[in-house]
Amino acid sequence: MINRTWSRLRELWNGVAVFGQSNDENRFSPELPDAELPRLRQWMDACLDARGGEVSARALAAALGYAYMDLNEAGRLRFLRLLATEYGRDNRVIEAHILDWQQAGDEEARQDAAQKLHHVLEPPRSRLLTLFNELPEGVKFLVDMRAELLDWRRDHPELKPLEQDLKRLLISWFDIGFLKLEQISWRSPAALLEKLIAYEAVHAIQSWDDLKNRLDSDRRCFAFFHPHMPDEPLIFVEVALVNGLANSIQNLLDECAPLQDLQQADTAIFYSISNAQRGLAGISFGNFLIKRVVALLEREFHHLQRFATLSPIPGLRRWLDKGLANPESMLLPAEEKLLRDAGLNLADLLLKNRWQEDPELVALLEPLICRLTARYLVKEKRHDGKAVDPVANFHLSNGARVEQINWLADRSVKGIRQSAGMMVNYLYQLDEIEQNSQQYTESGGAAHSAEVGRLLN
Amino acid sequence: MINRTWSRLRELWNGVAVFGQSNDENRFSPELPDAELPRLRQWMDACLDARGGEVSARALAAALGYAYMDLNEAGRLRFLRLLATEYGRDNRVIEAHILDWQQAGDEEARQDAAQKLHHVLEPPRSRLLTLFNELPEGVKFLVDMRAELLDWRRDHPELKPLEQDLKRLLISWFDIGFLKLEQISWRSPAALLEKLIAYEAVHAIQSWDDLKNRLDSDRRCFAFFHPHMPDEPLIFVEVALVNGLANSIQNLLDECAPLQDLQQADTAIFYSISNAQRGLAGISFGNFLIKRVVALLEREFHHLQRFATLSPIPGLRRWLDKGLANPESMLLPAEEKLLRDAGLNLADLLLKNRWQEDPELVALLEPLICRLTARYLVKEKRHDGKAVDPVANFHLSNGARVEQINWLADRSVKGIRQSAGMMVNYLYQLDEIEQNSQQYTESGGAAHSAEVGRLLN
Amino acid sequence: MINRTWSRLRELWNGVAVFGQSNDENRFSPELPDAELPRLRQWMDACLDARGGEVSARALAAALGYAYMDLNEAGRLRFLRLLATEYGRDNRVIEAHILDWQQAGDEEARQDAAQKLHHVLEPPRSRLLTLFNELPEGVKFLVDMRAELLDWRRDHPELKPLEQDLKRLLISWFDIGFLKLEQISWRSPAALLEKLIAYEAVHAIQSWDDLKNRLDSDRRCFAFFHPHMPDEPLIFVEVALVNGLANSIQNLLDECAPLQDLQQADTAIFYSISNAQRGLAGISFGNFLIKRVVALLEREFHHLQRFATLSPIPGLRRWLDKGLANPESMLLPAEEKLLRDAGLNLADLLLKNRWQEDPELVALLEPLICRLTARYLVKEKRHDGKAVDPVANFHLSNGARVEQINWLADRSVKGIRQSAGMMVNYLYQLDEIEQNSQQYTESGGAAHSAEVGRLLN
Amino acid sequence: MINRTWSRLRELWNGVAVFGQSNDENRFSPELPDAELPRLRQWMDACLDARGGEVSARALAAALGYAYMDLNEAGRLRFLRLLATEYGRDNRVIEAHILDWQQAGDEEARQDAAQKLHHVLEPPRSRLLTLFNELPEGVKFLVDMRAELLDWRRDHPELKPLEQDLKRLLISWFDIGFLKLEQISWRSPAALLEKLIAYEAVHAIQSWDDLKNRLDSDRRCFAFFHPHMPDEPLIFVEVALVNGLANSIQNLLDECAPLQDLQQADTAIFYSISNAQRGLAGISFGNFLIKRVVALLEREFHHLQRFATLSPIPGLRRWLDKGLANPESMLLPAEEKLLRDAGLNLADLLLKNRWQEDPELVALLEPLICRLTARYLVKEKRHDGKAVDPVANFHLSNGARVEQINWLADRSVKGIRQSAGMMVNYLYQLDEIEQNSQQYTESGGAAHSAEVGRLLN
Repeated sequence: MINRTWSRLRELWNGVAVFGQSNDENRFSPELPDAELPRLRQWMDACLDARGGEVSARALAAALGYAYMDLNEAGRLRFLRLLATEYGRDNRVIEAHILDWQQAGDEEARQDAAQKLHHVLEPPRSRLLTLFNELPEGVKFLVDMRAELLDWRRDHPELKPLEQDLKRLLISWFDIGFLKLEQISWRSPAALLEKLIAYEAVHAIQSWDDLKNRLDSDRRCFAFFHPHMPDEPLIFVEVALVNGLANSIQNLLDECAPLQDLQQADTAIFYSISNAQRGLAGISFGNFLIKRVVALLEREFHHLQRFATLSPIPGLRRWLDKGLANPESMLLPAEEKLLRDAGLNLADLLLKNRWQEDPELVALLEPLICRLTARYLVKEKRHDGKAVDPVANFHLSNGARVEQINWLADRSVKGIRQSAGMMVNYLYQLDEIEQNSQQYTESGGAAHSAEVGRLLN
Repeated sequence: MINRTWSRLRELWNGVAVFGQSNDENRFSPELPDAELPRLRQWMDACLDARGGEVSARALAAALGYAYMDLNEAGRLRFLRLLATEYGRDNRVIEAHILDWQQAGDEEARQDAAQKLHHVLEPPRSRLLTLFNELPEGVKFLVDMRAELLDWRRDHPELKPLEQDLKRLLISWFDIGFLKLEQISWRSPAALLEKLIAYEAVHAIQSWDDLKNRLDSDRRCFAFFHPHMPDEPLIFVEVALVNGLANSIQNLLDECAPLQDLQQADTAIFYSISNAQRGLAGISFGNFLIKRVVALLEREFHHLQRFATLSPIPGLRRWLDKGLANPESMLLPAEEKLLRDAGLNLADLLLKNRWQEDPELVALLEPLICRLTARYLVKEKRHDGKAVDPVANFHLSNGARVEQINWLADRSVKGIRQSAGMMVNYLYQLDEIEQNSQQYTESGGAAHSAEVGRLLN
Repeated sequence: MINRTWSRLRELWNGVAVFGQSNDENRFSPELPDAELPRLRQWMDACLDARGGEVSARALAAALGYAYMDLNEAGRLRFLRLLATEYGRDNRVIEAHILDWQQAGDEEARQDAAQKLHHVLEPPRSRLLTLFNELPEGVKFLVDMRAELLDWRRDHPELKPLEQDLKRLLISWFDIGFLKLEQISWRSPAALLEKLIAYEAVHAIQSWDDLKNRLDSDRRCFAFFHPHMPDEPLIFVEVALVNGLANSIQNLLDECAPLQDLQQADTAIFYSISNAQRGLAGISFGNFLIKRVVALLEREFHHLQRFATLSPIPGLRRWLDKGLANPESMLLPAEEKLLRDAGLNLADLLLKNRWQEDPELVALLEPLICRLTARYLVKEKRHDGKAVDPVANFHLSNGARVEQINWLADRSVKGIRQSAGMMVNYLYQLDEIEQNSQQYTESGGAAHSAEVGRLLN
Repeated sequence: MINRTWSRLRELWNGVAVFGQSNDENRFSPELPDAELPRLRQWMDACLDARGGEVSARALAAALGYAYMDLNEAGRLRFLRLLATEYGRDNRVIEAHILDWQQAGDEEARQDAAQKLHHVLEPPRSRLLTLFNELPEGVKFLVDMRAELLDWRRDHPELKPLEQDLKRLLISWFDIGFLKLEQISWRSPAALLEKLIAYEAVHAIQSWDDLKNRLDSDRRCFAFFHPHMPDEPLIFVEVALVNGLANSIQNLLDECAPLQDLQQADTAIFYSISNAQRGLAGISFGNFLIKRVVALLEREFHHLQRFATLSPIPGLRRWLDKGLANPESMLLPAEEKLLRDAGLNLADLLLKNRWQEDPELVALLEPLICRLTARYLVKEKRHDGKAVDPVANFHLSNGARVEQINWLADRSVKGIRQSAGMMVNYLYQLDEIEQNSQQYTESGGAAHSAEVGRLLN
């Protein structure tokens, strides 16, 4: 197998040929049948042995990566299970090194033994993962492999250690210091822009015209990129420059709305933040993204006075529905009376179609729901003391405060269903960020504006 | 201390201000006196606690990095010793996790415990090192820090674990898959070219004219770069395109020599490979560099038939001198006789000034020294079975073979002193590389040409 | 007026302010009423006098350009008429220089006088046009100004000399040697790609998906750009890599068609060439574009054997309709009989809706129309001896030959209406191009394939 | 000759082959003997006839350009003389068009005739010059051709019309709106920096260290580039950021001087402006360069308060020497007496070696020479009313004022010889530039500071 791997690598470097596309001994059957597993083991062993030298070992690994890409889903799963179960840590070796550590004569020897124990705790499969970096798009290859592992992990718990090894590798490679913040505009490559359309997770992009509107002169879009995945945003944020706190997402996204005069804009609204790589789940960049973008916008627009979000409240309806099963815990006596007098039931109401178009209902519900939303965001905590709402938890951890509760701010079907149309502005008050963050981390206390405070009493 | 770190980070990102340059509380006295150590500890703790959030923790670390750069040598040493001795692993925590591992009920639990044990074996100082990546030139900062650690490690063995942690981090970040191969030419920035002059370790570059000659149209120079150290070559190689195997370094570097007609060139000579970053010692790129460059040259020059080095033999004179203390082990009877008849003594001869300019001596010595050189390169082994000569070991590991021994190939003072003027061509025969490398790795057997073989008999 | 022009220019250079956007004395009323003409004259005079120096004169001209852009259509027309009628040549000065030329004593003096006469024949408005190049997008400004002049020239013949002056300037600035050939791909900026959609003149691009299909891996698109209009293609060509001569545009543009295996492609089909700048009418780049692209494709795809177009025949139906008014001149006796026997009339037939879907008709018409098409392309000439069909004239001038007549190659409404669904392949046979071009230029003789020759007999 | 020119062009575009380097029929003997002139004429005719199409004509011209480059000096001169004398205007054609113009019935016809007359006054050789733009470095080719024409024009007046045609072409192509202002730094390509060393015309750059010092963090260097000569600066300026008006060039260029703290710098000193292309003589960019750089520096350094030069006074000694032949016209009675009492003669003194090192002499001469320098700069005029000193004329035309006369500001051999060590600061007072320029253009009046005014009385 070692034969000619290096010459293949030369072809790879020169872009002449691509491993695995040729009809040769490198290929496996798509579903990777049992009969081919010995060959796969032999191949993995050869990568790890590196008998023909490190360059050849990497060539072998790259070819193996191409072979993996040619497998179908069943085949990939078998490939990963083999890697997870047969290329793990060697317990006897670990035991031996534990003994060395325990018996170390002095602190220097102990340090030394700890280093070695640390080393043997890194399983061989980790090294094989690293070798895949020889692939022209090796980083993306590994990120996508982790996305698959995360999908399959539930049904195949034996994959978890492999997934964890890969996560550890990606954490090191995706250190925030390596990421590049770049503006995305209508002048960006179409091949990149179509990825925004695909990855936007908060307010779906409807068309190229919708996208162009989001990249207009009164908008900004920024993303983090990794130097070895230049065509793939990791996370991106969409910002609108407006006058005053924006309180309606439909207004913000209206393609027919006039351009904001940038001389008059005093507020930057972060209205959408989307992670683009499933394979980087649990490796967080959002906090850095927001603050780097704030710094950039401050420099470009000297008259900006506020940096805030217009955020969804994804858990609100679920929480309301649960609470309303037991309404006395949620409603004030006066509210209960009001509803009762009107012969209405809040739980039913929210299920009613198009309630938001009935002016009387709207007038009745607004104060009530605003109050409950404030309570949900500021007071409702998980067991660990953090906010129940995941978006709230994210921004509060980052040091933002709950600034303004917005009634009927998202009238889309999804908005009504998820949060009864409510949205919220989190404010990044620059000189309070660290203190807010520290307070929230230590005690779960959520900073909020006086206005929101009034809703809480 | 946490106050306003984030606003400083904004300034850093915007290039407005630079931490530590201002005359403020961030600064330490250059020699870092004992009285300031508590403040340093507090600062390091704050970085690791990250109470104001991850963004602030990185800001603190960046500021700490600037403070480090402002220290003098004594101060830096004290800083690193503090980091090495007080931010290491916690033995009690390790012990607890060892127990968990040993008592794991099933393999899944054992895997889990191993992951955790692996995690606690990573000392806190490693995390602090990672945080320095927030510095604008954080990677270079850490590479240079390791260079200092390597210098000080001998006299301060307590620094070794820190140096090892840093090495592990750099190995991950400098994975060969991340490095970019770039051609360096006379069109490269002067700021980069002056680094070639500084870093060239084999045949010193005498002047800008010498450099320009080495970048002329019949020469090539390539280097590996890391995406986060774009102005710093990691390793570079100088190549001459010639006709036939070059056998004299002075001829190659002669600024007055005519340009090689590239249509006639059949051989690429790698005549100098220099590592440029002391802080990356022990992390090897040379093997990859040579082979990537071979692949590039093959593509650019279709008629190249040979890829070879013109290499120094740094250990030859030392080995000769040692051996000649006991000449019968080195000289054949015929040679001994010849010398005796001429009233000469080889050991004395080589000490003689300008012996290489005496035609009679030269005629006498050539066959004798060529034979000894071949023996030195091919037969002399270290305890581990590898070639004694470090350059020979490097090329033989890479799969090259000893092709041609060159008499009076380096007539410079250094060349005469180091290797009696001898140089050697290692040949990278593309279809033999992997086999040669495997053979050398397994048995220490050094591939060589028939011509060199004759010298051995 | 001269006051502070230079400080405005500094702002312009620094991107701080934009002339004419401020509510100041620079502005004119949109329709440029008579009362403001004296101020406009004064301003133009100041540009040409350049009393405050050349830098200030350019600043004035840039400001004038912004003022022009703020005018409405009526205002612009008045602006250009003023420029055309009041800033022309001075006949008395010309007369004086003619006299100098006629009375020149020797050849040297005559040359000198000719230079001066040449100089005074350049009207002042030409210089003013040149000064507009100070505008950040000055070249595009002038190209668009010429587009307007061309629109208005018919109704306002007094604009023609100005239009001609501008054309002369643009010919010099758009010398083919300055243009940059660039590939356009799906990785190009969306802002550029939307211009392809807007400018495509042959086969309209229906959507972003249609566009993406035209930029897929078996397609190529190239355009010429001017270094000072980097966001504006001047002319672009769309190429499909196929196997065999493509004979149906609908097949080529089918978004569902499988990708061509590039290893099998032997032919490059140029299926659309569009000029993108109306203001460059009469300044031709198409000939160069095709040949530069041929050279590029040859280098990229070594196995390409043919370079051909799939071209529309825009004048065919008009010519047929005219000719069929007098059918005996067009139809052969046998054909006439055939039609008569079938009770059909060709002129009526072609007006019939969806005739192309009637198999019997199609069988009847194919040989007849193919023959007439060949005759139209090869034999029908204008007064100057060139082909009547403008597309034929373009490719024949370039040295291509009429290679293949394609029946029902464009079944679109436009294709049926314009050319009864016929299309033609012009072949660029590389070793015949110059000879074909010379022959066509000198005698109007159109090169054609043997197959087309058979249709002519 | 037409055969295969296009296929050669393809090679040119693809960078495969270079015309004229092959040993083929394209070549001429280096000195271009008479016997080869018919072939040259035939070739030029073919370029102008363009029978094989425009693309081929350009290919022919490119090949002709390579043939020209292979000629020696004598051959080039013969080539250019042929072009100048045989490809000029046709007097009979001109005469005919003059008649048309004179007999034009109405203004429209007259305009038309003028256009045509203008057209026929453009000689065929102009078109041939344009075709050379097909060469890969066609613009540089033509610039260098003009440099040669300027050299030879004096001895060969028949070349003048050709030189003028070329100048006209270059004026159009080098319109200031096309030039790109770029900063040159130590990060610029060495290949570019060595051109600064070669082209610096005011204060020669002694070494790469000297150059590096001039590009240090308290210095700036800017140049204009043409988009088609990206490796060739057209003109460049060197700027020092200092505190106060610099009054000694040796201090400015001292490599050992400490770096200026940029926070303290209040003045930008333009201490050297050099034209880099002899072939662009008479096409002026300096005025624009200074003002564009002022605008850039203003933006980068908000606290700069002054933009001034430190300029040589190249004509001072010549004027002094001439004047001192008749000293009473130059010296005041008091000065004459002083000198007479000291037994000294100014004219002799200035010839004396190292007078500037004699403190007594220096004290005696300083007031006297400063006064004369002020008079020379402000009062001495040419016939056309402009300043005698060419550097003074340049800056005064640009709107600068004579700000400060500096005694012993240039102690170099050249400085003493050329201007008795005197230098002058011209101040670009931004709000006076236009007025100064206009005043100087109209009346020759030179703006100056009050201090200089005192020296004049």
